[in-house]
Amino acid sequence: MFIGVSGKNIISFGSGQPDLSPPNRVFRAMFRYRNFKYGLIQGNLNLRKALAKQYPKSTADNFVITNGASEAIDLTLRALSKVNNKKKNRVLLPRPYYYSYPYLIKFAGMEPVYTNLVEGRIDFDDFKKKVKNCKAVIINSPSNPTGRVESMETLKKIEKITNDLGIYVLSDEVYKDLIYIRENYLIKGPRVITVNSFSKTYNMCGLRIGYLWSLDENLVNRVIETKTHTSMNTNILGQEMAYEATKTPEKFIKKQVKIWRERRDFIYKGLSDMGLDLWKPEGAFYVLPKIKNPRAFVWNMFKKYKVITYLGEWFGANDRVRFSYALDINKIKEGLKRVKKYLKIKGEI
Amino acid sequence: MFIGVSGKNIISFGSGQPDLSPPNRVFRAMFRYRNFKYGLIQGNLNLRKALAKQYPKSTADNFVITNGASEAIDLTLRALSKVNNKKKNRVLLPRPYYYSYPYLIKFAGMEPVYTNLVEGRIDFDDFKKKVKNCKAVIINSPSNPTGRVESMETLKKIEKITNDLGIYVLSDEVYKDLIYIRENYLIKGPRVITVNSFSKTYNMCGLRIGYLWSLDENLVNRVIETKTHTSMNTNILGQEMAYEATKTPEKFIKKQVKIWRERRDFIYKGLSDMGLDLWKPEGAFYVLPKIKNPRAFVWNMFKKYKVITYLGEWFGANDRVRFSYALDINKIKEGLKRVKKYLKIKGEI
Repeated sequence: MFIGVSGKNIISFGSGQPDLSPPNRVFRAMFRYRNFKYGLIQGNLNLRKALAKQYPKSTADNFVITNGASEAIDLTLRALSKVNNKKKNRVLLPRPYYYSYPYLIKFAGMEPVYTNLVEGRIDFDDFKKKVKNCKAVIINSPSNPTGRVESMETLKKIEKITNDLGIYVLSDEVYKDLIYIRENYLIKGPRVITVNSFSKTYNMCGLRIGYLWSLDENLVNRVIETKTHTSMNTNILGQEMAYEATKTPEKFIKKQVKIWRERRDFIYKGLSDMGLDLWKPEGAFYVLPKIKNPRAFVWNMFKKYKVITYLGEWFGANDRVRFSYALDINKIKEGLKRVKKYLKIKGEI
Repeated sequence: MFIGVSGKNIISFGSGQPDLSPPNRVFRAMFRYRNFKYGLIQGNLNLRKALAKQYPKSTADNFVITNGASEAIDLTLRALSKVNNKKKNRVLLPRPYYYSYPYLIKFAGMEPVYTNLVEGRIDFDDFKKKVKNCKAVIINSPSNPTGRVESMETLKKIEKITNDLGIYVLSDEVYKDLIYIRENYLIKGPRVITVNSFSKTYNMCGLRIGYLWSLDENLVNRVIETKTHTSMNTNILGQEMAYEATKTPEKFIKKQVKIWRERRDFIYKGLSDMGLDLWKPEGAFYVLPKIKNPRAFVWNMFKKYKVITYLGEWFGANDRVRFSYALDINKIKEGLKRVKKYLKIKGEI
């Protein structure tokens, strides 16, 4: 996926990582911390206690600190696959989806079932029909790759139906602090597992500090049992840096959202003005326009125009291309210029 | 397993982690490193290049950096479970074994098959009989929990038979730098995957930097593909610290082995003098004596004598107890005094 490709004159709308800097205070841990012994498998107590203040009815016991949100999802699915509640090992997935979900579901020996998004949002009628035969559902709002945010109404209906039917909800909320239209709505319930991370909010992707939160004590214990064997504690210094990040004032996040919103407005207008069919992003930093020949587009943009984009088919959207706008607005401008040039030559706009 | 239990007057022969300090130079990375973006899934190039110098016929491509040796084993088994070479999904395991192996084998949807050690070493006749029906075998020399090192002759016979039969060898060599009787012998072959770590050699357990090495390109690629979804890159700062550790002069390790050998001699003599039946440790920092009532022993030593030991049954050795001697010699002395007192009262010695 061109990860790690860089070079002069390349414009990357590829990888989904912020180009901004982490809060200064996270570096403090690097100057201070000196204990490199094994830590608790569940995660450092100071970090879990700090997180507990951000979630309702919670103590440090409701959290497991993981190697990024990825490991939190992997461990949760591995744990869920062993829950014996007479439900079939199926997981319902809105499509387009984050590209790792189907892999992780299959790795855990489960089967993905898809509900197609309508205008980038969950079609609750279809969801309702399909969820009955599943053990779990993955919700990802704000969504990578659609950039859409589900309505409060839909999220509350999902809370109710999954609770009524005894279905687990794995809610991937790694973009919860990057929403342009309202505050995040935390999905709640006795079988909800929320996954989050320090990567996107605090620009610490490479440190791989994520976590899961759940009020389901059994599920949390199963995850810890699994992690005891699969990776043990999460990097202890990274956890100390994440702990420092929890002390970051709210204004750090607000300042960032302002930057993301400007970029969002800029790229949305730019692509719309070309006449492309796309959904207005409401969160995260992706936009997923329809493109006539996506494979030719992604390939040629890279080879001939030095612009990196990701194929929609990696995310279950065969007729689209994903642009990450996690880059400087001047670069976005230059990238859009090249996109426009290509599409004009091809007669696609 | 009493992990994380500490307190005044407690003597812990429990957790297997060095009490010594990391090389000073690993701290340098903490003062210098400032890039927290995603890294390569396979691991930092500087670290992999440094490791390639330590392994024959190797380049950076033959390595994957992981969240400790645990993740390297987990990823390898997950990758092996998907290899379709008409062999049954069985993994041969010498018993006693490191307690996570059977879990990880089962997590990957495979089945553990056991060959019982004789005098703490592989019985090659039994091994030979059982290995034919397996897809892979795990070798762990020096061994946790036995402290034994396999003979060169056995290791070479294992190399040959597995190569002849097309069977994978997962060689867990995390204690390769802590051997008292000879240099480590690296098992080689086209289907060998060697797992190692910075935890034990450089006293960096909590940073969770491990790796796997293999000349099997397909297997390495499968592991990278899996890790792309399950955890992405390993903590990028930890990798920089591990890179610094690779520059540590040989004498650092020699000095450590001297300390470990003194402790080994001391605890081996102490337990032998009590009349306990045990194997002389040849590597790592564990000893696994027979104990008449292991469950009562472990429980009472902890509750009444504040001495932590681990039940042999966690490692597939029902009639034994594991002592880690990764602690100061004065503490070992005090711990042994308490053990002797208990065993005398119970009339077991």
